[in-house]
Amino acid sequence: MAVIECVPNVSEGRRTDVVDALVESIRRTASVRLLDHSSDATHNRSVITMVGDAASLKAAVLALFEAALSRIDLRAHAGEHPRLGAVDVVPFVPIEDVTLQECVALAKETAADVAARFQVPVYLYEDASENPQRKNLEDIRRGEFEGLAAKMATPGWTPDYGPTSPHPTAGAAVIGARMPLIAYNINLATDRLDVAKKIAAAIRFSSGGFRYVKAMGILLEERGIVQVSINLTNYEKTPMFRVFEAVKREAERYGVSVLESEIVGLVPAAALVGTAEHALQLAAFTPNQILENRLRGVDRTSSV
Amino acid sequence: MAVIECVPNVSEGRRTDVVDALVESIRRTASVRLLDHSSDATHNRSVITMVGDAASLKAAVLALFEAALSRIDLRAHAGEHPRLGAVDVVPFVPIEDVTLQECVALAKETAADVAARFQVPVYLYEDASENPQRKNLEDIRRGEFEGLAAKMATPGWTPDYGPTSPHPTAGAAVIGARMPLIAYNINLATDRLDVAKKIAAAIRFSSGGFRYVKAMGILLEERGIVQVSINLTNYEKTPMFRVFEAVKREAERYGVSVLESEIVGLVPAAALVGTAEHALQLAAFTPNQILENRLRGVDRTSSV
Repeated sequence: MAVIECVPNVSEGRRTDVVDALVESIRRTASVRLLDHSSDATHNRSVITMVGDAASLKAAVLALFEAALSRIDLRAHAGEHPRLGAVDVVPFVPIEDVTLQECVALAKETAADVAARFQVPVYLYEDASENPQRKNLEDIRRGEFEGLAAKMATPGWTPDYGPTSPHPTAGAAVIGARMPLIAYNINLATDRLDVAKKIAAAIRFSSGGFRYVKAMGILLEERGIVQVSINLTNYEKTPMFRVFEAVKREAERYGVSVLESEIVGLVPAAALVGTAEHALQLAAFTPNQILENRLRGVDRTSSV
Repeated sequence: MAVIECVPNVSEGRRTDVVDALVESIRRTASVRLLDHSSDATHNRSVITMVGDAASLKAAVLALFEAALSRIDLRAHAGEHPRLGAVDVVPFVPIEDVTLQECVALAKETAADVAARFQVPVYLYEDASENPQRKNLEDIRRGEFEGLAAKMATPGWTPDYGPTSPHPTAGAAVIGARMPLIAYNINLATDRLDVAKKIAAAIRFSSGGFRYVKAMGILLEERGIVQVSINLTNYEKTPMFRVFEAVKREAERYGVSVLESEIVGLVPAAALVGTAEHALQLAAFTPNQILENRLRGVDRTSSV
């Protein structure tokens, strides 16, 4: 049974009645399951996590846009998190019995429908984007809502769908497909922020590190330690264990040890199984050997 | 929903018609699911793996005894694997939503019923046994079927249930409860058998190693390497990762590296998650963070 995850980020995190209405629009959509939603007042942003099949998720996203466009006016929006649209980002993520390519197709269909129905310009991103200049969310979002009209007038920034000027109150939307993302933090037994920043720079793609890693070094003031805060954007290709070991080794260089690590939110089982395979040098292991998979009659002969 | 695993070992591995009849007796039992069965002609022994609830498993075990006792005569049995009974060992294993203690109770009930119905003497073992002399399967089985009459006449070897002399053709049965067992082999990049034997001795309980480890060193002749062949008898208390790291460190002492490892048969998901937790120094991780658990609406707030 195909399971796709969809994680819309919307530009409202303060007015609870608005957030409730947005979440409700998802709840009301048949065959879609709401897994989680969280709001951040400082960011003035909310993240909704839902799962379902392709058709139901598209319906849910359209319902979300309908609810959002009548309630969110970006001209009056202020918050710490950069944003381009009332409904800012909508990634589709393959979870079970579905491929990344199928999610790309869903992203494109959804983008076309959003543009046609709401007259909101849409940019495809990540694996749904064929343009390397417009793959990375940060690159597309740069300039934010306020800079959008000017940006859209420049060559190379015609949206993939919809009008060639911003929606007056909803801006633009960024829709795409990606592998499950793992939010992973590694805490170091030191208060030296420069160490965390250097290690983050060493492991992240943008400054020469692993291909599917985003990272930054931050200070955890209350605890008096530092953290390498990481997004693993493709745990199959750049696995957790390899990144952990690299951080550990880099820290040694500074005489610093790894205190602990933490996974923020959800992690796919395969990422943990893959970690165990690395740690134990397991050969010829298949998920079919996991007892609980056999109990559920799940056939997982291909190694994840 | 309570899931218990039961793994009867029977003394027949050559006559396929007999094995078929034994497996069929399980298949015919309502509410029991046959997960696996495998036979070894050299050992002249078969292992059947099934899951179900307590009452159904007891019914299945009784059906198995009925089918086995009319077909297996130990006076005519020869094979490489030591055996005490036609149905030799019957462990009950907690898998989901059931405790080890509940499996102990089930083992005792089943043992009482087997003894009463078939006049087969039964010894409890592992966690179902309160007698330290009669906990370990090897200790109970020592002397095998041929030495059973003499053994049963000695003090301290009165069976827990049933007659005080062996069943003439079926011997005795050993029934108990234990944690899931993980059959785990670590292959070393050397052909020095003494190294594998020394490492096995270092890590196993019987010669001073970890409490819940059985191990032996063996030669894999075709591959020209050696193997530390391990049974992890309580992966929660003596986890995989710790044993792997100990073997790796011991091997270093001899200038030998770990080539690979392999899990034989099934492994509980929690053992792999626990391995990942160790390998990544994960703090505050709960199985509720595993995406697939959330999709199934499984609530796993307690850390496994």
